[in-house]
Parts: sequence; C-alpha cells; structure tokens
Amino acid sequence: MNRSVDLQAVLAGERRALARALSEVENDSLAGRELQDALFPHSGRAHMVGVTGSPGAGKSSLVNRLAFQIRKQGQRVGILAVDPSSPFTGGAILGDRVRMHTIAGDAGVFIRSMATRGTLGGLARKTAAMAQVLDAAGYEMILIETVGAGQSEVDIACLAHTTIVVEAPGMGDDIQAIKAGILEIADILVVNKADHPLVEMTRRALQSNLELAHPQQIGTLERMHHHTLAFNPIVLEEDTEIKKDDWFPPILSTVSTKGTGVEAVVQAIRDHREYLQRSGQWRQREGARLQEELNELILEHFASQWRIGMNADQIALVVKGLLAREYSPQQAVAKLIAGGGAFTKTV
Amino acid sequence: MNRSVDLQAVLAGERRALARALSEVENDSLAGRELQDALFPHSGRAHMVGVTGSPGAGKSSLVNRLAFQIRKQGQRVGILAVDPSSPFTGGAILGDRVRMHTIAGDAGVFIRSMATRGTLGGLARKTAAMAQVLDAAGYEMILIETVGAGQSEVDIACLAHTTIVVEAPGMGDDIQAIKAGILEIADILVVNKADHPLVEMTRRALQSNLELAHPQQIGTLERMHHHTLAFNPIVLEEDTEIKKDDWFPPILSTVSTKGTGVEAVVQAIRDHREYLQRSGQWRQREGARLQEELNELILEHFASQWRIGMNADQIALVVKGLLAREYSPQQAVAKLIAGGGAFTKTV
Repeated sequence: MNRSVDLQAVLAGERRALARALSEVENDSLAGRELQDALFPHSGRAHMVGVTGSPGAGKSSLVNRLAFQIRKQGQRVGILAVDPSSPFTGGAILGDRVRMHTIAGDAGVFIRSMATRGTLGGLARKTAAMAQVLDAAGYEMILIETVGAGQSEVDIACLAHTTIVVEAPGMGDDIQAIKAGILEIADILVVNKADHPLVEMTRRALQSNLELAHPQQIGTLERMHHHTLAFNPIVLEEDTEIKKDDWFPPILSTVSTKGTGVEAVVQAIRDHREYLQRSGQWRQREGARLQEELNELILEHFASQWRIGMNADQIALVVKGLLAREYSPQQAVAKLIAGGGAFTKTV
Repeated sequence: MNRSVDLQAVLAGERRALARALSEVENDSLAGRELQDALFPHSGRAHMVGVTGSPGAGKSSLVNRLAFQIRKQGQRVGILAVDPSSPFTGGAILGDRVRMHTIAGDAGVFIRSMATRGTLGGLARKTAAMAQVLDAAGYEMILIETVGAGQSEVDIACLAHTTIVVEAPGMGDDIQAIKAGILEIADILVVNKADHPLVEMTRRALQSNLELAHPQQIGTLERMHHHTLAFNPIVLEEDTEIKKDDWFPPILSTVSTKGTGVEAVVQAIRDHREYLQRSGQWRQREGARLQEELNELILEHFASQWRIGMNADQIALVVKGLLAREYSPQQAVAKLIAGGGAFTKTV
C-alpha cells in the first residue's frame, strides 16, 4: 500500500483521510488505483441514489433536505455533487455555495463536489469509484447529484440503485422534451417547488409522459442496458426469474426550501430498495454495474497499449493522409490493424 | 458498393438518396460504413457550425433563422438536430414540431433530427459521420444543434469548426453554473430573446464569465483537447506557428422569433471561418477531429475483438467473483489480460 493515504483511517471514515482518498481516486493516480483495490472488499453495502433533473429544479436543496432526513433516521450519508465547472476557477461552482446550513458540521455527512473537466467518457467511472470509496468508509446512503440531462448524467444515474428525477413547474418549453428522455431512468419522480401555481400542470405532464415511458413496465435493468457499448448484461442466476413489473415510479411533491414532502421521498427510496432486493434486481444491477466497470477497464487497457505502440510521427503521417483524403478513417484503421500498428501508405 | 443507396445520387444531393444514406450511417449498418468510405474523398469542404446552450434559450428558432439567412446568401445549408428522444415515441420530439415555416420546401436546406437513444459514447461519432454525408452531398454550411449542456453536447460542439452558445435572459439560478462550463467552447455567444427586460444583466454576466474563461486567450485547439482520452493532438506542421490569440468570442444579441440580429450572427460565423483559415487552425481542427475519429474506430475494433473472445459464461464467472468481492475489477482485468481472455480464479 502507498503511504499517502491511511487505509484504516479511510475505513474508519476519518474525514481527512477520506478527503485525501477521494482526491487520489478522482485524479486516477497510482495511489488511487491501489486504494480502490484495497477498499473494494469493503464496498457493496451502500444504497446509491442518483438525483438528477433539469437545471433550476432545486436539486441541491432537495439533496440537502434528503441528507438531513436520512441523518435523523440514524444513517450516515455521503453526497457526491457532479458539477459543471471551469478549469479556470479550478473547482466546482455549485454545491459548496448554498450547501448545507442544516447539516454542515454533522460528522455523519460527507459532501464532495466533483469537477467535470478532463473526463470525457470517464466521468461516470470516476463517480462510481468515488462512490465506492464512500461506501467502503461506511456511508450507508450515497446521494449522487448531477445537473442537466446529457448522456453523462444518464450514465451516472445508471450507477445508482435508485434514480430520482426532480422537476419543477414553469420551466419553459423544451424542458418538456428533455423529460421524455430522462423519465426512462426515473425510479422516483419529484415535483419540487410544489407551492408554485403551475404545479398541477407539471404533475399531469409528468404523469402522461411517464405512462408513455413505461408502456410495458419495462424493467430498470433493460433500460439501463439500452445503451451498453460492448457487453450485453449477463444472467447471473438462470433459475431465478426476476420480477420487474411491480414498480411504477411514484410522483411526489416537495417544497425543498421548506422541507415539505421530503420524508415521503426518503420513504420511497427505502421502498425502492426493498423492491430491488425482493425482486432480485439489486444483485442484477450490482452485477451489471461491475460488468460495465470491467468493460471500461479492459478498453482502457487496450487504448493505453495502443498509445504505447504508436508514435507521434506515425500518427501525424496517418492524419495527413486523411486530410488529403487519400483514405478514409475506416480504411486507415484497417491498415493500422493489419500492420500491427505500423502504417505504410502502400498496404 | 451496396445497392441500397445510390452514391451518385447522394453526391448530387438528391433528397431521397440523401435521407436514406443518413439513415444507413445513423444505424451504423454495413451499407452505412461502405458509404462513409465512398463519400469520404468528397468531404472536407463544409463549414460545421455547432449551436448549443441552455434549454429554452431558443436554439431551434435561431437555427431556423440562420438557415434562412445563409440561404439568402446563396449557400446550401444542412441542419442536424441532436435531440433527446424516447425509444417509445420512436423519434425526435423537438425539431420537426415547430421547424421551418420559412424554409420548408427550400431544396437548398436539408433538415435531419437525430435520435439519441442507444448511443452511449457514440453520439458524437454518429453526428460527425452524418455531418460528413451532408458535406459530401454539397451542403456548404452545416448547423449542428444540440440541447443541454452535458458532456456529449460538448463533444459534439468539438466536432464543429465554429461553436455558437445561445443563452437567454431570466433562465433561473443554476443555468449560471452551466454557462461557465459551456463558455469555454464558445466561439460566438448569442443572447437570444434580447427584447426581454433582463437582457443587459445576462449580457454582463456572460461578459464577465467569458473573461474568466479566456484569461490567457487560450486557443480553441487546446480547449478542444482538454478532455481527449487517448491521444494528444499532434503537430501537423512544425514550422508553422499557429496564431490563436486574436479571436475573442463576440457577444451578439438576437430576437430569433423576429429575425433581429441574425445577419450579424451569420457574419460572425464567416469572420470566424476566415480567422480559422488565416491562423492555420482550420487545418489543425480538421486534423484533430480526424485523429479523434481514428482513435474511436481503433478502440471499437479492440472492443469487438474482445467481445468475440469472451463468452457469456466466462463473463458471468468474473462478475460473480466481483459480487462476492473475491477480487477488484482492476485485479480481474489484470488476470483476464494475463490469461489472454481466459479467466481462472487461481491466477
């Protein structure tokens, strides 16, 4: 083990060690990789809850309130806020700003904002790795908050056992369109700012979109694997028939600034966990998530092998040929593979 | 060549052949792949313009107006609208709805909405491939419209020569935060709905965020490659010093529903092209884009090789060991690589 992070201190949930461990994992350093291996046997207990939805829906304040409520029930809570951030400001913009007047200073809550810079394709993996650290450190519920509605947010939501989609009334026109995509990943829907005059309209819109999104009560696992790149999800236990048609996402109303309705959301999270475990989906989701992680690590291995095998001159040669339209990218790759990484114009 | 799509008809810009070609490429069929190879020599002429920004900022109507204006100037325009969509409705929700009362029926405009389903990690590549088809078919300016502010939108914007970020006044709180991330990719900023009372506040906020995002006048190529996974951008011409510090993104105001200010945006697009070509960045961006395409194709090759080499039983075995915490994902991958794809518990 490396000396920079004390494994036992992390496992004991000591805040400084934990903060350091999270940084190493976020930076994907060698120490971070070693830590992941060392912590892995201690992970697998936490309930991962994704919280996503349109900008301005009040996700941060809802997450605050959820954490407060979960703490009241005696569980330790980790929060990962995945924020758009600038490389120039060097850190996350949201999150730390308005966060947690109620739960600041509570040793049972650990909050971490993540930068999203420099993480093409890797953001979901990094988030998973950091959630695993919190899991190993004994945080029993981990809230993963993501802004927006892009593919990376959907990927992150897929890491979670339970995904909450937060909307608010009166959010403008094409928010409506985003909902359709994001509703497919929702296990629980929250209409926040429920003291807004247009709340009933929003609820009705969500309800009808939800019925559209769940016409056949399609299971979460299938939805999760709509877009898996390289593997199909495997069947872990052939003899267990997984029941997946008895969870229909509830639509709950909250006023997160006041805390109204938050208790019911926490109850829905617990109900969903109970459902996942009863139906066998908890284990299936875990398996699918680990399979995905495996897959990404394998691809990364090949990518780095490839990088080592090619030098900059060769790449420049290939790219110049592409710019001159001498061959297409597909043709170039075929040549490269045939040449074992070497490239000659006259293959 | 395959028989299903007539190559000459595509190159001549015949609409039915073009629509079919785009579908084949979007589906990533064998015919689509062959088409890409055949069309590649004819591509490389179009000006790719990304249009992105917060939901509700009025991107679609701005894109309409831009297309109308570009047509007036005699160029042919392709539009790719990358939309969140539901697998259940089977197609794009935005785009086709309110589109183009002014330019419908104009043979010099080709509009295509893309579904985003099932395209984890592949959306940007697919968009690039479809833009290349329009390019080969003789469309001189291609507007690529993306919703939202997720990583995939940023990736798509990076395909473009010129990226326009559209904002609107009074869009709520954490929109502000998104801006910081997205401003880094902006070549041109548009404040739409400029007849809104809060427009000056929005302009000022953008201005100060922009100064934050461009403190050292960092070049677009560097920004583009902040997040490249596997390759660093290569230097194509060592002896050419690329000047990149003389473009500062202008902030323009429009009322796209009325067409106000749209001409100035088109002029800024043309100015930016002129700047890119003069500074050598046009060719550098093209090269970087092609390099990225190469990279993705290589990774895809390895992924498919790997899939062929592993069977479901083996994967299930590995995943079960992970679930039992017998080894970590990294340890599993190390074993798999060492075993050449075979996996024994006792390596």
